[in-house]
Amino acid sequence: MEAERLDVLILRLPENVLLLSGYWPMIGAGVLAFPLEGNSVFVNPHCYESEANLSLWDSEVVNYSYGVLGATEQSLALRQILAEIARGRSWRRIGYEGAIKIVAPSWNTAELLVPQSRDLLDAVFNNAELFDASALLESQRLRKTAYEVGKLRTASEISSIGLEAFQKWVSVGISGVRLAAEVEREIMALGTGYKGAIRVRAFAQVAVGPDESAVGYRPNEVSTTRPLNDGDIALLELGVVVDGYWADRTRVRVAGKPTDEQLRIFDVVRNAQRAAVGAIRSGVTGAQVDAAARQVIGQEGLAEFFPHITGHGLGFRYHESAPILSPDSTEILEEGMLTSVEPGVYRKPFGGFRLEDDVLVTARGAEVLGAFPMALS
Amino acid sequence: MEAERLDVLILRLPENVLLLSGYWPMIGAGVLAFPLEGNSVFVNPHCYESEANLSLWDSEVVNYSYGVLGATEQSLALRQILAEIARGRSWRRIGYEGAIKIVAPSWNTAELLVPQSRDLLDAVFNNAELFDASALLESQRLRKTAYEVGKLRTASEISSIGLEAFQKWVSVGISGVRLAAEVEREIMALGTGYKGAIRVRAFAQVAVGPDESAVGYRPNEVSTTRPLNDGDIALLELGVVVDGYWADRTRVRVAGKPTDEQLRIFDVVRNAQRAAVGAIRSGVTGAQVDAAARQVIGQEGLAEFFPHITGHGLGFRYHESAPILSPDSTEILEEGMLTSVEPGVYRKPFGGFRLEDDVLVTARGAEVLGAFPMALS
Repeated sequence: MEAERLDVLILRLPENVLLLSGYWPMIGAGVLAFPLEGNSVFVNPHCYESEANLSLWDSEVVNYSYGVLGATEQSLALRQILAEIARGRSWRRIGYEGAIKIVAPSWNTAELLVPQSRDLLDAVFNNAELFDASALLESQRLRKTAYEVGKLRTASEISSIGLEAFQKWVSVGISGVRLAAEVEREIMALGTGYKGAIRVRAFAQVAVGPDESAVGYRPNEVSTTRPLNDGDIALLELGVVVDGYWADRTRVRVAGKPTDEQLRIFDVVRNAQRAAVGAIRSGVTGAQVDAAARQVIGQEGLAEFFPHITGHGLGFRYHESAPILSPDSTEILEEGMLTSVEPGVYRKPFGGFRLEDDVLVTARGAEVLGAFPMALS
Repeated sequence: MEAERLDVLILRLPENVLLLSGYWPMIGAGVLAFPLEGNSVFVNPHCYESEANLSLWDSEVVNYSYGVLGATEQSLALRQILAEIARGRSWRRIGYEGAIKIVAPSWNTAELLVPQSRDLLDAVFNNAELFDASALLESQRLRKTAYEVGKLRTASEISSIGLEAFQKWVSVGISGVRLAAEVEREIMALGTGYKGAIRVRAFAQVAVGPDESAVGYRPNEVSTTRPLNDGDIALLELGVVVDGYWADRTRVRVAGKPTDEQLRIFDVVRNAQRAAVGAIRSGVTGAQVDAAARQVIGQEGLAEFFPHITGHGLGFRYHESAPILSPDSTEILEEGMLTSVEPGVYRKPFGGFRLEDDVLVTARGAEVLGAFPMALS
């Protein structure tokens, strides 16, 4: 903020409010004023007062009536309260969220308010200079603090509850939809309360059989009601959010006895995944880590069947823009960065094999968060 | 479109693409060009080709590489393809999604692309006139077609699977989180495939006991690990999406034997809900329907404990902006409109009681979609 000469950040996306206040709002109806000097103020829908007070680090809270008869229209209410907060402070240069392209979903409100801050800020700060702080916020999200690492470790450990459920449920006759439903259920039911986790939600996607799992290649699977046949693979892509912090895991299992070819491809992918994890340490580039995985797969003559990057940053969202582990990534890994490591091989008629953990760059190398075994059956 | 002299709509929000193409995109990475004359074109991430072909009514499909190495950067790819589509067509006035404030979540991708169309359209249509079609699209979403009613009826019927699960699981010792997890699991596991439903997801929120269920009043409950005690109420707020079409239901149950006071308040709310449903027909105002519910509650001296509106539109999202059933709503209900009907009474120390169904305005009156009993125990 000092480098950009910002007097205050006005934030509305839940993922950014969490970053700077400790509180993950329900639906994006709150506003955080985070000044360079002095305490921050969170403008909060009245009905989430106890939740905000429970989680906010040190922000002052101003509640406004929300969702009830007689309440002031929301944008007007926010405008009035922000003007009140700004009164007497000489905020001249204001950072806001200008470029919102991807947003994390809210916990389970089934819709998200996407802040359009510009009008609000024009109305409140008519003599100030507005600065799009999106890049600044992304850079702030890149290196995780010790506090954030603790939260992310918990999220990954809770995601392992889902990996265990997946392992338990994969069997002949069950469908991808049913597997996804069971994995999500166990994560929410058993994960909430684990190490103080308050709000837990999972997004499980399970592709079943060679056609579903190797379709071109796609980042998001479409679970269907097709049942697993004997010898079919099931590929689980799993996003888990715990109080606003994300985990991203993938496992693959076979119903019944795997074939030698399935075992061979699985071993190649597991070795590639291990090689990439082993290459992670402070100072290496994203390309070097990607190469470690790609080399293992290439040695087996499978390079053309690994069509995507090896990994991506995450933490305050399921996917963040940095770091990226790809063949042309010159980004240098630093302590505190978190990246997925997820090589894969997609080859009809055998299907899609991908293995994924989230890996933290540490002072001494790398730490796999929420470590959980990888096995095909 | 003719009234606004629009030559084409360029749409990116999944809920609007669904409205005009029949296909509900996974994550908002596609673009629909919907011209006044001629067939529409859907620009589709390559890996969802089969899903798009399965659902699109009559759009031509142009696929682009997505999420794989060597793919053209996404905004550039979309720009090139749109320019190609526009070539030779004299599109002069272009409708786009300008004012995006609330968005429906994607099915289970755990993140949503929020389209920022302005830059894209400025680059492609540099001599054309851009028109924010948000209000036009909302008006198009207001009166449901027979096709949409069929889809919405299916969504409501699937939501009843969740109401039944809730009824089955409410008992002493179970927590709100566990109830939410079981309801969501049953809806996904049993709802997918029902009457052809392909993609089903539920967002269940369960408040337990008087403090959680009557906190001020709030539109979204926070489920916790607090177990139900004997005589506690549990309030379920349930959003369900089925292939892009939404249902919104609420039920309340008691674990064990209800008290006379709980039964009395429950009856008042049920009578108010029935009165409002009975008042719905083409030609009445939102205020008249609201008054029907509010009168029943007022007669029992509970008016001050019903602090919110009686209902809201829905369909392509969990909540739509119209119609609104509130004391000052002059909106006139018309055949094809869909509204929630959800009066409630929130009164410590008894807790929060709300009952909600989705009601279609028909030629002859009203139809409760996915009708399911209301009972406290």
